[in-house]
Amino acid sequence: MTLPAEAFTYAALREAPAALLEALESRFAQRFSTARAVREQHGRDESAYVDAPLPQAVVFARSTVDIVDTVRLLAAHRVPLIAYGAGSSVEGHLLAVQGGISLDLSQMDRILAIHPEDMTATVQPGVTRCQLEEALKGTGLFFPIDPGADASLGGMCATGASGTNAVRYGTMKENVLALEVVTAQGEVIRTGTRAKKSSAGYDLTHLMVGSEGTLGIISEITLRLHPVPESICAAVCSFDSIEQAVNTAIQVIQCGISVARIELIDANTVRMVNTHSKLELPQAPMLLMEFHGSEAGAREQAQAVEVIAVDWGGKAFQWAASVEERRRLWTARHHAYFAAIQSRPGCRAISTDTCVPISRLAECLLESIAEVDAAGLPYFLVGHVGDGNFHFGYLVDPDDRRQWLLAESLNDRLVARAIRLGGTCTGEHGIGLHKQAYLLAEAGEGAVAMMRAIKRTLDPYNILNPGKIFSFD
Amino acid sequence: MTLPAEAFTYAALREAPAALLEALESRFAQRFSTARAVREQHGRDESAYVDAPLPQAVVFARSTVDIVDTVRLLAAHRVPLIAYGAGSSVEGHLLAVQGGISLDLSQMDRILAIHPEDMTATVQPGVTRCQLEEALKGTGLFFPIDPGADASLGGMCATGASGTNAVRYGTMKENVLALEVVTAQGEVIRTGTRAKKSSAGYDLTHLMVGSEGTLGIISEITLRLHPVPESICAAVCSFDSIEQAVNTAIQVIQCGISVARIELIDANTVRMVNTHSKLELPQAPMLLMEFHGSEAGAREQAQAVEVIAVDWGGKAFQWAASVEERRRLWTARHHAYFAAIQSRPGCRAISTDTCVPISRLAECLLESIAEVDAAGLPYFLVGHVGDGNFHFGYLVDPDDRRQWLLAESLNDRLVARAIRLGGTCTGEHGIGLHKQAYLLAEAGEGAVAMMRAIKRTLDPYNILNPGKIFSFD
Repeated sequence: MTLPAEAFTYAALREAPAALLEALESRFAQRFSTARAVREQHGRDESAYVDAPLPQAVVFARSTVDIVDTVRLLAAHRVPLIAYGAGSSVEGHLLAVQGGISLDLSQMDRILAIHPEDMTATVQPGVTRCQLEEALKGTGLFFPIDPGADASLGGMCATGASGTNAVRYGTMKENVLALEVVTAQGEVIRTGTRAKKSSAGYDLTHLMVGSEGTLGIISEITLRLHPVPESICAAVCSFDSIEQAVNTAIQVIQCGISVARIELIDANTVRMVNTHSKLELPQAPMLLMEFHGSEAGAREQAQAVEVIAVDWGGKAFQWAASVEERRRLWTARHHAYFAAIQSRPGCRAISTDTCVPISRLAECLLESIAEVDAAGLPYFLVGHVGDGNFHFGYLVDPDDRRQWLLAESLNDRLVARAIRLGGTCTGEHGIGLHKQAYLLAEAGEGAVAMMRAIKRTLDPYNILNPGKIFSFD
Repeated sequence: MTLPAEAFTYAALREAPAALLEALESRFAQRFSTARAVREQHGRDESAYVDAPLPQAVVFARSTVDIVDTVRLLAAHRVPLIAYGAGSSVEGHLLAVQGGISLDLSQMDRILAIHPEDMTATVQPGVTRCQLEEALKGTGLFFPIDPGADASLGGMCATGASGTNAVRYGTMKENVLALEVVTAQGEVIRTGTRAKKSSAGYDLTHLMVGSEGTLGIISEITLRLHPVPESICAAVCSFDSIEQAVNTAIQVIQCGISVARIELIDANTVRMVNTHSKLELPQAPMLLMEFHGSEAGAREQAQAVEVIAVDWGGKAFQWAASVEERRRLWTARHHAYFAAIQSRPGCRAISTDTCVPISRLAECLLESIAEVDAAGLPYFLVGHVGDGNFHFGYLVDPDDRRQWLLAESLNDRLVARAIRLGGTCTGEHGIGLHKQAYLLAEAGEGAVAMMRAIKRTLDPYNILNPGKIFSFD
């Protein structure tokens, strides 16, 4: 279904002519760079495409006008433009596979407005989720989407990110109210208002969320905020088997208990996380959970979940005693990826991202575990199991072709299984370079043809992040 | 900003040639009709466009293949096709403004699957919300979106409907997981899976939801269901002034209390509803509310809201004592429109649908009330105030041109006010025929141009519900 990264054939480079580079340099001066180190920083990511071409130059935008000017210059020369946020995508989104210019938006990092009375915030795309969290302190509000990495909110929009809180608060799709977008023609449009709902024409906001920088450059984002719950408590529950843990999660969801987070971590990953984050969690499959509500409400939820867990053979809950301990636990969870990478110096992780209907989760997960165990490839496993979403990270030696192929074939089989069970090849990481064949298998040729038609209409010269999601031709 | 309906100029008719009508008749036999009564039934609605052309014929579809065949025949002749569900839209969506064929989907009324273990249901587009509610009995699940009328779920998708529960459960946008859609070329595509979330390519589901039958014909819908709460309780609270009521609603939302419903009804509407539904509600501005949760949770919410209400001068809550009384109250609320119409025999209601950020709701609402009171036009007023969305229904004598113009000018000013306050011209009714100028004012030319570009790409011959949302050319 997919090709191992090393066999990937890149399209022909679309070289920026000297006149364009000069025009960009004259317009952006110090905020334009062709230095190799800068291009490498913007042209390499955590994905498996280690030999992708580098962008020819990097422009650092500070305003919507900067984006407009860059898009217009590039459009005139039909040279690719790749938006760059925090560089934390995992599917090769930021790679300059056809060459072109990387547009770094990280300096567009202003929080333009916080409207606590409406529970909305408007930010520039380079604002990161931790920066927003900091800015919201004292407002009684928070923004729930946490993809783990300190991603930029523009990147989170472009990817359709989610994370641990999505089980209760939804994903970026549910939490972006409106966008300002620079089109491929360098026009500035607004896709919504600050009203909580609207039926005014086509839903361009949702068209842009998850479009991976291929339909427009997001220059401003209006987000929905949520009240900080009166009570937040976190607990860990260990199980003898992963089957018990996943069945507990399934039943919690099926009982309609509104947990804020319910994360699965396998024993192997617990070990890595303990080492990396200096924790002493029991080395067993576990659920890491959080409950939000009033004092009584959160307690009620936790009690109901504990009954289910014990019923499935889980141990008693271990509660995070303090806010600090709770933070430490979640930070450890968010660092699982790096904990795993560091557990095998020099390795790379090939991350899977399937998501299935909750009733098929145990089947999907357990069969896939059996498969990777049989294959003997080291891995870590974490899951936003309340959403039916989980990630294997297959740890491969980048110089060992056999391991690459093995990881890719395991991912192929996992994706095929997820699709067969009514699920998707990507819950939250997006398609990027790596999953284009999977998208076709999942959505079908007709739906992909419709996506392509939209792309060709909105970006006829294919300058916005070309080569991603699907083939243009 | 908008034209009174009577001054509306319809585009040239695109007449179905005899050969096409014969082909349709031969294909659909008894399920094809050119009878005037049938065409009138499918060509008239609650909107103000009383002189719109009628569709030339009506086809009754029973399957996706029926839709495909109809679309292909019409596409070959470039004749318009207007999808028809329950006929409950209020903005002229179903009117055959350029002639063409009405495709009645009401016989596509099968519930294809209910997956209680995943909290999803898959239905044909002609299934109505009450039919689904009935089918879900005993599953412990419900579908929360209730636009009042017993609308078809296909129509609710196409309009981007919501209703009283949206404040807690979201709108159709948040509750449609996936669609099967017949494109303008007569291809069948699927826009998603049963997984709870996905980042797989462009979000075609959301592109179709709210597209008002202009981008494709929805032939199958997979919906997100919700657990029936352990406890549901409804209460009514009366106020001396509408200002007190709306300020209560605002504060409830700003405190983050997760009410399931919080509806404003003005004194005038209470009177109409009392007469129509044989109730004896106090004739004063009121909030009609519902609380969902565990026994303790729902009680906790209700107590918090009562404290806020009393603080704003509200009377003590009157509780719906039984399930029957609760149903009666909500049915009465849902019949407010008809109660109003019947209060003045022969009148028509011009309905507004603005939605603003919650902090601007009092300003928007109170200024608009002052305006209509000063104008002396009879009206009713109901509001999904928890979402910042409310509806005036201006009651006009259809033969009185002055009243029409007055109602339209009041709506113009209301929409301009809502947009100025950061809101939208339509929270849930859609654009249809009536709000095209408002869409342009709200979204701007660039965004509407993008919508038009998408329309022209996906439906190049403009056969799907032409003349709606925006001009094609």
